[in-house]
Amino acid sequence: MDLSRIRALTFDVGGTVFDWHHTIRDEVASLATRRGAEVDAPRFANEWRQGMFGVLQRVRSGELPWMNADEMHRRALDTVADGHPSLALSESDRDELNLVWHRLRVWPDAPEALERLRSRYTVVVLTILSWALVVDSSKAAGVQWDGILSCEFLGHYKPDPQAYLAGLRVVGVAPEQAMMVAAHPGDLRAAMAVGMGSAYVQRPGERGQGNDGDLSPQPDFDVNALDFGDLADRLLA
Amino acid sequence: MDLSRIRALTFDVGGTVFDWHHTIRDEVASLATRRGAEVDAPRFANEWRQGMFGVLQRVRSGELPWMNADEMHRRALDTVADGHPSLALSESDRDELNLVWHRLRVWPDAPEALERLRSRYTVVVLTILSWALVVDSSKAAGVQWDGILSCEFLGHYKPDPQAYLAGLRVVGVAPEQAMMVAAHPGDLRAAMAVGMGSAYVQRPGERGQGNDGDLSPQPDFDVNALDFGDLADRLLA
Repeated sequence: MDLSRIRALTFDVGGTVFDWHHTIRDEVASLATRRGAEVDAPRFANEWRQGMFGVLQRVRSGELPWMNADEMHRRALDTVADGHPSLALSESDRDELNLVWHRLRVWPDAPEALERLRSRYTVVVLTILSWALVVDSSKAAGVQWDGILSCEFLGHYKPDPQAYLAGLRVVGVAPEQAMMVAAHPGDLRAAMAVGMGSAYVQRPGERGQGNDGDLSPQPDFDVNALDFGDLADRLLA
Repeated sequence: MDLSRIRALTFDVGGTVFDWHHTIRDEVASLATRRGAEVDAPRFANEWRQGMFGVLQRVRSGELPWMNADEMHRRALDTVADGHPSLALSESDRDELNLVWHRLRVWPDAPEALERLRSRYTVVVLTILSWALVVDSSKAAGVQWDGILSCEFLGHYKPDPQAYLAGLRVVGVAPEQAMMVAAHPGDLRAAMAVGMGSAYVQRPGERGQGNDGDLSPQPDFDVNALDFGDLADRLLA
């Protein structure tokens, strides 16, 4: 792929830019302490995230009506919370806990690298997460985007090819003028399938310690970066 | 209206934040000079903008298919260009000229005031203009938003009430937690009709010298501001 044609970088954010696992883990651990409950907080965090993807799959298949990720997180939380009765989470506790997704911490290498990348590229978000989640978490973490696009209003969820194509139409670029950036090979391969470039960023610890899959560079990606600083160095070289 | 409940400010941008008239006027005047043509550039600018609203009206009524403002500007340009044959604008000239809308100048009082407002509020765009137009013009002008929403993907164009309600759903706030900011009374009154707050900002010269309508404060708006500095002073007081 001719990297000199790239004008827009479209970023995955959940896991790639925001550290959902440790944000959720710490919130749940603190809640458990307050209630005197014994909870495996890292496992709770991973089950919640995984549960959201389960709901998303049912939305994508049409089994569930269209909804945004806030509603998916809320539904998934019911299942996880019911599996942890010691926390005794009421409906309103659950509504409140669900908002932790709007206060996601940023991986420390991301903000400065994104700012550097904005000097050459249009730097936007293309996410399955809700638009308000990304707005709120970005604002709290001091992350600045040129624009944020959520699948919630694009009519299709990643990794459906139509989600990438709808995003590109709004950004106003052709697939070969855009590069998807993600810590998730499946997201990148779906973007490549519609003609976009691909930049893989390693995120060891995305699911907590000892839960990494294979993080090694993949020869089919246009860029393989160790972290966000490395990503900016490679794309601005 | 209880202003202490406001969490999000939704900004109109065409005319309110970006100075479309003088941007277009200067581009057309410079093009006319290069071609040795006599053109009333201020009138060209106003006819083009007005023509876009004519196309928008036909989209809103369903007479024309759904399209974004780039396509509306391009259609409207055909009519205006045909009325100025001395410019001899070819199809590709028109395609290129249409891009001037992605390089709109910002009114000089806006960037700093928006930055101040971001310290207390979630500051977003709610526009009939295309998302990419706002991304590109904001980036070039150094204007930073918490997020940008375009009617092009909300399913309804302002001033339809559904456009405001769809925007609020994505922002994740109730109408009484949001305030529309605009230099256009019609936009504000449509926002008020769904329960939002309203802040009017005077923009003398929006359509060029001598073309202002009545700019006086209106008692039904929650805030009447002389300019963006005044708006920030009032909302942060």
